[in-house]
Amino acid sequence: MAVPLIILVALFAGIVSIILALYFRSLVMKEDPGNEKMQEVAGYIESGAKTYIKLQYKVLGIFVLVLMCLLLFIPSPLEKSKTYERLISGALNWEQAVAYIIGAVGSMMAGYLGMYVGVKANTRAAQGCTISTKKGFDVAFFGGAVMGLAVVGVALIGVSVLYMLVPDPNIVLGFSFGASSVALFMKCGGGIFTKTADVGADLVGKAEYDLPEDDPRNPATIADNVGDNVGDIAGMGSDLFDSYVASIIAAMMLGAALVLIGDVAVSDEARYTFIVFPIVLCGVGLIASLLGIYIIKWKGSEDPGTALNTGTYAATVIFALIALVFTALMTIGLTASETAVLWKLYACSVIGLLSGIVLGFTSDYFTRDDKKPTRNIAEAAQEGHAVVILSGFSYGLLSVVPPTIGIIVAMAITYLLAGVFGVAIAAVGLLAIVGTIVSNDAYGPIVDNARSIAEQGGLGDDVIRTADRLDSAGNTAKAITKGFAIGAANLTVFALLFSFVTEANDIKEGTIEVIDLLSINILIGAFIGVVIPALFSALLIMAVQRNASKMVKEIRRQFEENPKILTGEEPADFNKCIDIATKGSLRELIIPSIISIAVPLSIGIIFGVASLGAFLAGAILSGFVFAVMMSNAGGAWDNAKKYIEDGHLGGKGTETHKAAITGDTVGDPFKDTAGPSINTLLVVMSLTASIFLGFLMMFNGGMGLLVF
Amino acid sequence: MAVPLIILVALFAGIVSIILALYFRSLVMKEDPGNEKMQEVAGYIESGAKTYIKLQYKVLGIFVLVLMCLLLFIPSPLEKSKTYERLISGALNWEQAVAYIIGAVGSMMAGYLGMYVGVKANTRAAQGCTISTKKGFDVAFFGGAVMGLAVVGVALIGVSVLYMLVPDPNIVLGFSFGASSVALFMKCGGGIFTKTADVGADLVGKAEYDLPEDDPRNPATIADNVGDNVGDIAGMGSDLFDSYVASIIAAMMLGAALVLIGDVAVSDEARYTFIVFPIVLCGVGLIASLLGIYIIKWKGSEDPGTALNTGTYAATVIFALIALVFTALMTIGLTASETAVLWKLYACSVIGLLSGIVLGFTSDYFTRDDKKPTRNIAEAAQEGHAVVILSGFSYGLLSVVPPTIGIIVAMAITYLLAGVFGVAIAAVGLLAIVGTIVSNDAYGPIVDNARSIAEQGGLGDDVIRTADRLDSAGNTAKAITKGFAIGAANLTVFALLFSFVTEANDIKEGTIEVIDLLSINILIGAFIGVVIPALFSALLIMAVQRNASKMVKEIRRQFEENPKILTGEEPADFNKCIDIATKGSLRELIIPSIISIAVPLSIGIIFGVASLGAFLAGAILSGFVFAVMMSNAGGAWDNAKKYIEDGHLGGKGTETHKAAITGDTVGDPFKDTAGPSINTLLVVMSLTASIFLGFLMMFNGGMGLLVF
Repeated sequence: MAVPLIILVALFAGIVSIILALYFRSLVMKEDPGNEKMQEVAGYIESGAKTYIKLQYKVLGIFVLVLMCLLLFIPSPLEKSKTYERLISGALNWEQAVAYIIGAVGSMMAGYLGMYVGVKANTRAAQGCTISTKKGFDVAFFGGAVMGLAVVGVALIGVSVLYMLVPDPNIVLGFSFGASSVALFMKCGGGIFTKTADVGADLVGKAEYDLPEDDPRNPATIADNVGDNVGDIAGMGSDLFDSYVASIIAAMMLGAALVLIGDVAVSDEARYTFIVFPIVLCGVGLIASLLGIYIIKWKGSEDPGTALNTGTYAATVIFALIALVFTALMTIGLTASETAVLWKLYACSVIGLLSGIVLGFTSDYFTRDDKKPTRNIAEAAQEGHAVVILSGFSYGLLSVVPPTIGIIVAMAITYLLAGVFGVAIAAVGLLAIVGTIVSNDAYGPIVDNARSIAEQGGLGDDVIRTADRLDSAGNTAKAITKGFAIGAANLTVFALLFSFVTEANDIKEGTIEVIDLLSINILIGAFIGVVIPALFSALLIMAVQRNASKMVKEIRRQFEENPKILTGEEPADFNKCIDIATKGSLRELIIPSIISIAVPLSIGIIFGVASLGAFLAGAILSGFVFAVMMSNAGGAWDNAKKYIEDGHLGGKGTETHKAAITGDTVGDPFKDTAGPSINTLLVVMSLTASIFLGFLMMFNGGMGLLVF
Repeated sequence: MAVPLIILVALFAGIVSIILALYFRSLVMKEDPGNEKMQEVAGYIESGAKTYIKLQYKVLGIFVLVLMCLLLFIPSPLEKSKTYERLISGALNWEQAVAYIIGAVGSMMAGYLGMYVGVKANTRAAQGCTISTKKGFDVAFFGGAVMGLAVVGVALIGVSVLYMLVPDPNIVLGFSFGASSVALFMKCGGGIFTKTADVGADLVGKAEYDLPEDDPRNPATIADNVGDNVGDIAGMGSDLFDSYVASIIAAMMLGAALVLIGDVAVSDEARYTFIVFPIVLCGVGLIASLLGIYIIKWKGSEDPGTALNTGTYAATVIFALIALVFTALMTIGLTASETAVLWKLYACSVIGLLSGIVLGFTSDYFTRDDKKPTRNIAEAAQEGHAVVILSGFSYGLLSVVPPTIGIIVAMAITYLLAGVFGVAIAAVGLLAIVGTIVSNDAYGPIVDNARSIAEQGGLGDDVIRTADRLDSAGNTAKAITKGFAIGAANLTVFALLFSFVTEANDIKEGTIEVIDLLSINILIGAFIGVVIPALFSALLIMAVQRNASKMVKEIRRQFEENPKILTGEEPADFNKCIDIATKGSLRELIIPSIISIAVPLSIGIIFGVASLGAFLAGAILSGFVFAVMMSNAGGAWDNAKKYIEDGHLGGKGTETHKAAITGDTVGDPFKDTAGPSINTLLVVMSLTASIFLGFLMMFNGGMGLLVF
């Protein structure tokens, strides 16, 4: 059975995307990198980022190789005898293992390219701001677009080529797991790195020595800038790469399992159409993203914030239109009932995308400084440190409600339209325009860095103000992206859960007929699942706190041992700070990484695969609550502080401002470390469950060792 | 079929308990209430507490009457035709409605008696401290024991008499729902009241005017003292009353549903034995509690903290021994297999109690100032406000893990021993010695108030130090009680969930065969359930914050308009502050109360009763995470602050101390409002589901209006 040729649209879009990424890179590189001081600062950032990436990729390489070896020895999904017999036959699961390596290397390459351009674009964007807002915007936006296009391009090429070579979604699952392993390291590690530097720099620099943000005398300033690149560009990129691929694979696996539509058997041709449909949607989404990027560039000269949002809306509409055409094309040769299903799936993809937009804008509402929540938090700062914390925390909790309703409505409608496959397609639809989303998101840290370089390079107040304007547009885009990313991860892991169950039943009929909360092993699985995001958040926040404390000591040591740093006569030792953040973030990664793989496996072994399903469901639901709460509380605190710094409620230097800084500092690891890492954790755990399913079936046929 | 006479042991224990409570009350009243100033302060507290209770009970009365009317019109569980037909027949469900009123009034009476003695005991305990530690301890402890004994006595008498009159557990369910309605008001309302006053007093008094704790010049001091009584005595008492009765009723309903043991049919006699077993266990537990109280009194002269803990241990051992005897008695006349089941149930009750002790001591570990978590939080305060918050929050999250393991182990073992009935009996066992637990807990606010009265009554440093020693023992007891209460509520609501399912199937066979997370309506129910505790926490924390902010304004107004208050020449206007706390707490109760009843009903109506079961399961699991996290984080912050105030890390007045105060203030609504209210919320929602089950069955036979 030949794979439908329409999959080529995805491959084509992926290749165009990579070509455009390389073209944008050359556009950025051609720009003027600014004066000597700016280039020096940019050089520090670049070398810091490279040091981090080198060490990170080294450890990650070992991790990936170890996991690959593990994969080799688990039962291969390509064989009919998927469990014990296969294992003792001595045959190796090399197909999934190779796909795994390709996924990991692909994600690493995309991340590297994006970050490499990011650290080149920052100083050029700063220099661009000396000419015009438009110039600065263009450079930063093209720099960010490189990341967005690289991520989507590599992912789509990988998925479509692998599936054309071996038309079994399980191989793509290996690819997805590879991308996830990288995301775990890049997102959590980057999150710890960036906040170690940020919190450390703020605690000593701002609070003790009253240095302004980004002051070159602060030894942690460069580490902070590096953190923006490794955490916010490479981390967010690998996170969305991860969700993107995972959503495709979940939908493909559910499509592959389609046997009946109503009472009519699905023909092989139709089934292939359904399997390929998610890849085609992503290809269409990438085309929409490219057009969205073009629109942003064209609108960018007016208002940067509006331009970014218009691009997102435009990509949505364009996606809906082109997907309509492709869906129509794909119905050729299908029966009437199959055609009806395909149209329902099309509707699911659009609903998914709309729900993503709604989620993004809810999180925008809860974190914008012209809306009630952030205003109230800023006002609470007038009553001191404790009240601003209580206010932000409770708004964070409250902000969970609207996206919950959004997700539930989307899930209910898409389920009614096309069952669990419909939910999976909604996740694909949500992630289809991820190219635009990542581009907008990566724009943020570039302009953030540009502002810092403008400050350190002495470009003057006018240029800094221009950079500030670009930065503020970046923050809005970032808030939307985060809501979007959480929604995407949520729907994706639901889809993965369903595909996990489908796969278990495919290996042995009736393995998971129900995941019944009235069974004690299921209840226990769900219980552990609900607790896991709390544990994970605790570990990550503690990691930041521990590392930031080391950073604080180092900054104090430098100021005390060499008073000339504070007077600006001698430069601070930036490398030492980068070193602390790098090594610390890697060390702190060990336990969360082990947990995210060992806990699902242990539950599967002890309580059985159905309990593992309940564990995943519990983790998804509670993870959603924690992720949304922490991201939005953190964002709102950040913007409440900025609102006060803009001169409201007394402005800078007041007690109110100090309280707002406390809120922002608490929010830092919430919104940039723990919150977004939960997405990755959920995807990694879900994929671990699916990948090791054949292995887990060896324990009492998937019932687990402890039978109740 | 006659109810087994052994139930009389419970009635007997209940009556003894009430007699002892009244006797202890007279003991307390006979003590010297101290000097005029002390009596004046105590008078203010008493009148404040009475004002609050009067208004609270008035609103509560209306709420209870409205709910009673609703109950009248739902299908009665005593009829065979439990659903629609019954409703249109026009017959009223007066049995449950009457039981409901009795439960509500009983809980209100117990709460009133406990609080009435509490506000009398405080000044007497303070005066006792001028004689000896022992004297002070005795008065406070007897005062607390009145609450403990009244709660358990009223509950046991109510349950046993009702069941003897109408031997149908559904009637006791009405009683339980009545107790729950009261708990919802007393716990949430009291929690908001006490923290409004506490946070308000701290924010202005301590932070702005540098007044010491309990300074009589602070207008909110009396409100703070009143809050201890209404929140910590009456609130905690009604909370445990609620869990206590709910655990009994859940076990009774599951016992009533026992049809088979293995393959052997259960005889009617045996079934009655099983139904009555939880009541008997509670009777035994009450006897053990009385002996425990005796031991505490006897040991009290040495070290108050050790005495309280020894009492808890002793009650545990005594319970295990007496229950052994009664279990042996109850096996008379049973078959061999029935006897084996009864012994297994005995084991379950002991395991439940042991797990409660373990939970209590875990929460003690995470909040004690001589253990690592609290020490680390205190050290984090050296790095500022933000770091102390991050540290406490992450330890709070981490502290969820050990009790999760404890509960899971207890659930797994008891389930293996005797199925869901075993889990329910574990909850009963856990709550059996609640008399000792509530006594120890109510001791806390009495000595806290005594310390305040000693300060305001000018009894001198020595007496204050004695009172401080008693107070510190109270704090340890309180930490243990909280862990205990959370564990109790958790197991209880699990048991209620199982009894809810049993009842649904009893009304119509096959209504809830499974609660399958793979069905979309179930997943949606679970999703909403997981989110609800977050919403509830947000509302309660915001309530405290809003009210505290009003309190702050009032305190500032008083200081500004009358400078003589600050010099101590004129007394502050305490009543105004009490009024703000009272009215605010009632107003803020409205939305949470509606949510706790309307949300479960809406889910049942829209998505069906199985989805409602999933909703409850989701709420239980995520509620557990939130309750443990908030209680322990709050306790740890509190003790970290006290540790610093004891002279460590620089002591009072330093920046470190200020940061620790921020932690404590954030922790206040965490540990005393939101955290413990979640227990009550869970019980109310679970009981709502059970009570309105017949009504919910009217919507598509329990499938809900929206069928997927």
